[in-house]
Amino acid sequence: MQESIEQYMQTVGQQARQASRVLASASTQMKNNALSAIYTALQNNESTILAANQIDMDKGRNNQLDSALLDRLELTPTRFKAMLQGLKDVISLVDPIGEITDLAYRPSGIQIGKMRVPLGVVGMIYESRPNVTLEAASLALKSGNAIILRGGSEALESNKAIAAAIQHGLKASGLPETSVQVINTVDRAAVGHLITMSEYVDVIVPRGGKGLIERISNEARIPVIKHLDGNCHVFVEAQADLHKALPIALNAKTHRYGVCNAMETLLVDENVAEAFLPRIAELYAEKNVELRGCLETQRILGSGVKPASEEDWYTEYLGPILAVKVVSGMDEAIEHINKYGSHHTDSIITENFSLARQFLARVDSSSVMVNASTRFADGFEYGLGAEIGISTDKIHARGPVGLEGLTSQKWIVLGDGQIRQ
Amino acid sequence: MQESIEQYMQTVGQQARQASRVLASASTQMKNNALSAIYTALQNNESTILAANQIDMDKGRNNQLDSALLDRLELTPTRFKAMLQGLKDVISLVDPIGEITDLAYRPSGIQIGKMRVPLGVVGMIYESRPNVTLEAASLALKSGNAIILRGGSEALESNKAIAAAIQHGLKASGLPETSVQVINTVDRAAVGHLITMSEYVDVIVPRGGKGLIERISNEARIPVIKHLDGNCHVFVEAQADLHKALPIALNAKTHRYGVCNAMETLLVDENVAEAFLPRIAELYAEKNVELRGCLETQRILGSGVKPASEEDWYTEYLGPILAVKVVSGMDEAIEHINKYGSHHTDSIITENFSLARQFLARVDSSSVMVNASTRFADGFEYGLGAEIGISTDKIHARGPVGLEGLTSQKWIVLGDGQIRQ
Repeated sequence: MQESIEQYMQTVGQQARQASRVLASASTQMKNNALSAIYTALQNNESTILAANQIDMDKGRNNQLDSALLDRLELTPTRFKAMLQGLKDVISLVDPIGEITDLAYRPSGIQIGKMRVPLGVVGMIYESRPNVTLEAASLALKSGNAIILRGGSEALESNKAIAAAIQHGLKASGLPETSVQVINTVDRAAVGHLITMSEYVDVIVPRGGKGLIERISNEARIPVIKHLDGNCHVFVEAQADLHKALPIALNAKTHRYGVCNAMETLLVDENVAEAFLPRIAELYAEKNVELRGCLETQRILGSGVKPASEEDWYTEYLGPILAVKVVSGMDEAIEHINKYGSHHTDSIITENFSLARQFLARVDSSSVMVNASTRFADGFEYGLGAEIGISTDKIHARGPVGLEGLTSQKWIVLGDGQIRQ
Repeated sequence: MQESIEQYMQTVGQQARQASRVLASASTQMKNNALSAIYTALQNNESTILAANQIDMDKGRNNQLDSALLDRLELTPTRFKAMLQGLKDVISLVDPIGEITDLAYRPSGIQIGKMRVPLGVVGMIYESRPNVTLEAASLALKSGNAIILRGGSEALESNKAIAAAIQHGLKASGLPETSVQVINTVDRAAVGHLITMSEYVDVIVPRGGKGLIERISNEARIPVIKHLDGNCHVFVEAQADLHKALPIALNAKTHRYGVCNAMETLLVDENVAEAFLPRIAELYAEKNVELRGCLETQRILGSGVKPASEEDWYTEYLGPILAVKVVSGMDEAIEHINKYGSHHTDSIITENFSLARQFLARVDSSSVMVNASTRFADGFEYGLGAEIGISTDKIHARGPVGLEGLTSQKWIVLGDGQIRQ
């Protein structure tokens, strides 16, 4: 059996590589036609897909999956509609492929430029969210990539039904059906092959819990675009305008708790702590946010604040808990962020031009902000149109990853018979 | 001992990370001052460095290293001068750090842009070429990165002497001496630590033989910017101007044999083969280039041509040998290149506009050329000023890697108190 999974994955990989050659030179119109045909196929197969999802849901309930997982797994008619709207949005995005930039003459007489091209084959590993299947497939196709999808086993029937509609649409439009392939086995060995087939797969995009992503990163022989943690900070600097600091600190923590761009630690300059902390603490109390503070925070806010341990500064709570630290100024704030943070998103609240400029330069995170809520770190808010994930890597794609993150640039050289002297 | 190497490497890594924080916000002037101070320190220590190199050379001769390796190892006064000139060139390069691009307003009122920033810490692993020590260090410093250098054991004394001068220059200019560190042990375990210390090292740049680079890529837990093979092609298309095709095919093969951008397989359209092959074969014969051809090539050129095996199409000869194949047209040529090539550099010779355009789009290589010699694939020829290597990866840096390849872009968000709705 082990053997046959390897063979199966090899076949999937070979087919994806072949499809990627066709997709790489497909015109924008061909790709958009395919996405439109997929739209129609999904519309026509709504009931089949929702029925397949019901099978997954029933199985999930029998297996006593927790309610959060069941919620993510479920496809309702409303969610199906939203999924289709997302596809429409991708169709309307500008095609990044083929763009040539920086084409300039060199002393030798040749012209050098860069052409934007697809990466080739994307391997996507994700949890039991069927909508991600369509989202990832549509972004891959639009950017001229083939994609191999490995969703959570709990969503297998839903994903197969969605993939069938996608392949129906691909076929109708004349692009290879194997442009989008869903791994049809729940055997974990499939993932092991997917992340090591460097001849067939160019990049792995994992989406899921930290443990899953760490394991994949450690075992992959292929570049991984990933994000591990979202331990984001807001630093209320001494010259902050509290009319901005208060709503931002509230929004960054409480707008949504379970998201990677929520604030997890609030840093406050000692010169403004007495004025700011009691007022923000009141707002958090209304939202039942638990505060864990340093000694100075505890002194100012009193017994309602639990002590923060060293561990708290590292923690992504993903819930109504916030660590709070009073710092002596910019340097301590930046050191804290670069040491304990996860290089995701960090924001300073200040009216001081020079400090804002320094913060932007010195904080080593994928998004660095001035006077804005960390919640803005998002492909849609940044104008990417859609995102396949958020990267906390420094290499290739950093921060929200849209179509451009699924592309590369090759050099083109145009000559007239030039040889090297 | 194993234990103490681990501790040693941890210390090196920690120091590099600390230094990188300082370098990241160092001004262009500070970095150029440091590079100038290094220039002076090297000038003042020329005799010490050449003496250290003599120790390495003596040891190398005693250990009967082959002459090519000894040649690469040797520092002469002329080479020392060239090394210093290279440093001057890096000083005159434009500093890429801090550049902000695409800063634009979004509907929410925030401004989004990208800021170019250093990667952080570069781990460089290379063979016994002492000049690479200075080249890599100067590129890293100019781009605001700390660097850890692991050169070949045969060059240890030379590298230590060069590093001492570099650190002297750093100290004189006020930047951390630990910005550039040379691993002072020849124990191979040091490499194992270097390529897995993901908390301290952001990118690995290996330069050396294919075996070394494959081993590093397989074991690394850090992104690797690498190039494995340079199996480059020239395709003489049916509508080629032979006045261009002949000098280019000659130059691409014979200008230098041992370089990664030399042509290794010549593809010729069947419609031009009878006219082109005998003429180019005559030129190759003058240079004693051995030809290995397909059946059709052998038919046209006669018994002077050895048969090419399947293996030949994959081979990077790095010497005066050339594989030659007659193909039925563009499609076969592109299929051959994408299958057997190493995605390094490939060139088409044609006067046909549409075919040139297709070739540029469909060949999946880091450099794709029209009517130019593959030998142009080089950081200096492309105008990068210098290169730390050539990448055949698709991720992050592709083709010649200059200063920009040692940088990343982070998102910056400028607001006026905006919160997410």
